[in-house]
Amino acid sequence: MSIELGKARLEQDALAQLLGIKINDIQAGYACATMEVRQELLNGVGLTHGGAIFSLVDVVFAAASNSHGPVALALNVNINFLKATKAGALLTATAREENLTRKTGIYRLEVRDESGDVVALAEGLAYRPGSKQ
Amino acid sequence: MSIELGKARLEQDALAQLLGIKINDIQAGYACATMEVRQELLNGVGLTHGGAIFSLVDVVFAAASNSHGPVALALNVNINFLKATKAGALLTATAREENLTRKTGIYRLEVRDESGDVVALAEGLAYRPGSKQ
Amino acid sequence: MSIELGKARLEQDALAQLLGIKINDIQAGYACATMEVRQELLNGVGLTHGGAIFSLVDVVFAAASNSHGPVALALNVNINFLKATKAGALLTATAREENLTRKTGIYRLEVRDESGDVVALAEGLAYRPGSKQ
Amino acid sequence: MSIELGKARLEQDALAQLLGIKINDIQAGYACATMEVRQELLNGVGLTHGGAIFSLVDVVFAAASNSHGPVALALNVNINFLKATKAGALLTATAREENLTRKTGIYRLEVRDESGDVVALAEGLAYRPGSKQ
Repeated sequence: MSIELGKARLEQDALAQLLGIKINDIQAGYACATMEVRQELLNGVGLTHGGAIFSLVDVVFAAASNSHGPVALALNVNINFLKATKAGALLTATAREENLTRKTGIYRLEVRDESGDVVALAEGLAYRPGSKQ
Repeated sequence: MSIELGKARLEQDALAQLLGIKINDIQAGYACATMEVRQELLNGVGLTHGGAIFSLVDVVFAAASNSHGPVALALNVNINFLKATKAGALLTATAREENLTRKTGIYRLEVRDESGDVVALAEGLAYRPGSKQ
Repeated sequence: MSIELGKARLEQDALAQLLGIKINDIQAGYACATMEVRQELLNGVGLTHGGAIFSLVDVVFAAASNSHGPVALALNVNINFLKATKAGALLTATAREENLTRKTGIYRLEVRDESGDVVALAEGLAYRPGSKQ
Repeated sequence: MSIELGKARLEQDALAQLLGIKINDIQAGYACATMEVRQELLNGVGLTHGGAIFSLVDVVFAAASNSHGPVALALNVNINFLKATKAGALLTATAREENLTRKTGIYRLEVRDESGDVVALAEGLAYRPGSKQ
């Protein structure tokens, strides 16, 4: 049910639409999405923009952290950029829940290109304000 | 000169164009840019998308870290999301150099809304591969 | 009062005692402490141990984040190690509050050596469980 | 050989000795160590000090990142504190290499207590200055 909600939210996600981010799967504490790197996702030196990569990461983070029902807000994300990619690259991002407390959740966020190389690794901390102490 | 280069690169920054990010100023180790939150920058719950906020942050980070000449690559960014904003908000991001070594630079990245409230605080670590040890 | 409490807590801080960490000042949202790098604070290659530097950072973070009264817990710390130091170095750490909400606080954490060089820069996110939504 | 070197370095690690950190295993890109929480590792409110937990994390991070031979330096660590522990707790930390380039390495750092609960999750970015571009 909350997974359906997550998918519905993604259909409402205007930036995801703008960037061409497609959700593949949402499970409890897990999400996967893809993004093809089009020309408009490049930065000033012709590489995939860090903002585009982060947007893809943020989409799976939101989907996974909200998959349990209570609204979860992104509080902190730490991201390492490991491989530069170019136009035409097909990026796949996954979010996996690593820890869940009543108020917080930690998610492992990974972006790989079509050859399976790691493009970015991130860790997300979500806060669930609605949950009772 | 490298500042002119930074401005030229931003004109080439396709994602910045797509999201409506405008650079205001680039100095040595400093950059400032603005972004108006249009409908297409919202997420599935009608708030400014984390990916849009990060994109704005990434633009000033790149401008400031490349302002000295040698190419600087974003290696790590740690971002805290502190205030949710909505369509119509005018966000201003600044990047300030806090530390510079031959190979690395640390940048303080701040996003505020039109009322001056902090929307996001981030720290960026840039790596300058071309610099000699 | 909460500042007195902070000072009292530090007198109870066994690890701070063990490492020779001395608190200099606690104000609302601010703290400063020093640590002299003794032989037992070195790592296996004869440099100041990252754990000793982090311990000093953690002490000022706790003092500043608890300075308002409600208990604040360290939730996330992102630290950049910028300059290696050796036995005999005198390190000074400061914590400055950058943002405060009912539930969270963000602190800027800085460590400098006796020559004023930045040894480490960190950002701390504290959570205040006792505060009402 | 570099693993032997890592073990030798740990025997030289004065802070690890002071805190009672014991290395269990070092493999290529992997390390595991334990620390029993003695009274002197507590903070001012009687919980395991963040500095003690980080020291344990730093020891396995250094052992794993240096396991390939070339000297690796801790550049950035992002740590999330998830469960408070007390005197008597037995903490086990592991470091697992997630990505390795000529100049950098990313390590997944995990601390669990004797019941297997996650106490802290961290990500470490190491820089290898000696490696050729």
